[in-house]
Amino acid sequence: MNFVKEPMAIENRSMEIIAPYLRDYKLNEAETKVYSRMIHASGDVEYAKVIKIGAGAIEAMKKALLSGCNIFSDVEMVRTGINKKKLASFGGEVFCEIANPEIAEVAKKQKITRSMAAMRHFGKRLDNSIIAIGNAPTALFEVLSMIKEKQIAPAAIVGTPVGFVGAAESKKLLAELALVPYITVEGTKGGSPIAASCVNAVMYLLNNDRV
Amino acid sequence: MNFVKEPMAIENRSMEIIAPYLRDYKLNEAETKVYSRMIHASGDVEYAKVIKIGAGAIEAMKKALLSGCNIFSDVEMVRTGINKKKLASFGGEVFCEIANPEIAEVAKKQKITRSMAAMRHFGKRLDNSIIAIGNAPTALFEVLSMIKEKQIAPAAIVGTPVGFVGAAESKKLLAELALVPYITVEGTKGGSPIAASCVNAVMYLLNNDRV
Repeated sequence: MNFVKEPMAIENRSMEIIAPYLRDYKLNEAETKVYSRMIHASGDVEYAKVIKIGAGAIEAMKKALLSGCNIFSDVEMVRTGINKKKLASFGGEVFCEIANPEIAEVAKKQKITRSMAAMRHFGKRLDNSIIAIGNAPTALFEVLSMIKEKQIAPAAIVGTPVGFVGAAESKKLLAELALVPYITVEGTKGGSPIAASCVNAVMYLLNNDRV
Repeated sequence: MNFVKEPMAIENRSMEIIAPYLRDYKLNEAETKVYSRMIHASGDVEYAKVIKIGAGAIEAMKKALLSGCNIFSDVEMVRTGINKKKLASFGGEVFCEIANPEIAEVAKKQKITRSMAAMRHFGKRLDNSIIAIGNAPTALFEVLSMIKEKQIAPAAIVGTPVGFVGAAESKKLLAELALVPYITVEGTKGGSPIAASCVNAVMYLLNNDRV
């Protein structure tokens, strides 16, 4: 069978195919790369219409990454998708506690989701971090509530929870409150690969070496 | 903040919201559950138009799962997304070798993708398995080529690779050749959560216990 097998050739060709879909959005070079990678991860050019990069978000993420910030994710799939080798080259690490049995116990007792319990559990460790939420609206609502109450001060939020119950609302609130620099997606679409690809895109902006 | 926090309430409400979008597709109960979970994972009701369940695919997957089959995935995000506790209750396990340094070495030497090299490496272990490909068209092309050449005989393929270079073509070929029972998605959309949610949906059909 005859098909493109060389990884970088595949990636470069993908970016070329995506480029025309971004022409109408007046994006700078960094924004173009973030949009492209999120679209690449979904196979869905319609994302161009709904991606929302809050003012200063890319710069805030770059600064935090360069200072060695950690990333806290709501679900394991986001952690899996983030290029951890690249992150480690800046000094950071990804944390996710959804699979921690103690967190599950707390969640069960309090009748809340595990990802929400995990965010509460992280607490002050979220200061100066990047929070990457790809799945659970409840985790995003919780984090916004913690920021509002001045319990935590993260450097930025990548919030792309997915689905039909609370996802659109949580992302709308993220953008409306604009308490911290954010990147999000309007509506019901989203998911772990969208959050992870967004984080990876910003890391790849810092140098061209993919690690 | 006031929002739905109870996990099963969120899931049930999601499924209710998705239901009207499936009305036109004449799906049976099992198909409805598979479609619903794939749509739930993407937040994208447009998936209803492009999901394709090959003849006998759900039954073939159920049978394989009950016999304790293993699942082989192209990328770690698919492995992460599959409910491994549930799979273990049937006797199966998920394998992914993309992060294996030896596989990376082979891929580099042969100028092919790591996921493609991993599929070759699995070889006869793919017999009677479910192959779940959520990311790499090259892995799907490779598997189809191995089946065509009678090197392997998997029980079923869940093939939802994503993107703009080869993804649509690989999925089209999967459905056209119909060498084994398959579930796929037409076009460029897809991804790890789509593949994983499809596998999970079929597992949940086998009993109502989510584990």
